[in-house]
Amino acid sequence: MFELQAIGMVESALTDPDSAPKQGDEGAPDAWIVFDPAVAGALEGLNAGDEVLVLTWLHLARRDVLRVHPRDDSSRPEQGVLSTRSPHRPNPIGLHRVEVVAVGDDRLQVRNLEAIDRTPVVDLKPVLG
Amino acid sequence: MFELQAIGMVESALTDPDSAPKQGDEGAPDAWIVFDPAVAGALEGLNAGDEVLVLTWLHLARRDVLRVHPRDDSSRPEQGVLSTRSPHRPNPIGLHRVEVVAVGDDRLQVRNLEAIDRTPVVDLKPVLG
Repeated sequence: MFELQAIGMVESALTDPDSAPKQGDEGAPDAWIVFDPAVAGALEGLNAGDEVLVLTWLHLARRDVLRVHPRDDSSRPEQGVLSTRSPHRPNPIGLHRVEVVAVGDDRLQVRNLEAIDRTPVVDLKPVLG
Repeated sequence: MFELQAIGMVESALTDPDSAPKQGDEGAPDAWIVFDPAVAGALEGLNAGDEVLVLTWLHLARRDVLRVHPRDDSSRPEQGVLSTRSPHRPNPIGLHRVEVVAVGDDRLQVRNLEAIDRTPVVDLKPVLG
């Protein structure tokens, strides 16, 4: 068992998981990621225009689901959650590719983030070449 | 605080983190990911040839490091860990893009995984179109 700590939080106009886009490029809005002041120094080197991967903790997801209909489409046969991007999975870590729009001391504005308001953020990584 | 559980483990010929490649496309070997039997059903739908993202828990990493020299190269100025792929970061989650080579009941053989032997695996996601 490993202990994950929130390093920040999503601030977004999206509040309802059922109406949120399933992926960022399906109409998700711009949002802010507000970081814990304790980790603000770890942001140095990030700039507007960078493509980054945001890792979130999908706090509303179920962890006991092993099979789902892809994209909640019951006409598609069930398959194992690890072969899908379902939020429901043993460790509900969300992975979101976004573009940094603006950088503040303890926050980033990002484009097309489908995570809902108050989703905890656990990591951020640059997209590699 | 969130509790992450290992759902599997890397089996690899790589045992020394200092000599392991920094990225999978820098000479990493094929490896196996052996899953907990409790989650084996979640693998259904994965096939040889699929590109997947493996999320690991980098159990040897330091969590109290906020700034590093990129790629351990002391000639490069320090920058915030969240703008790098350093394993040392507040939540040391590794993200590895690999190709599935073979699928067994409770295991996957994958190409070019730079994680060392016995690294815990916490999630697996398909690469999106």
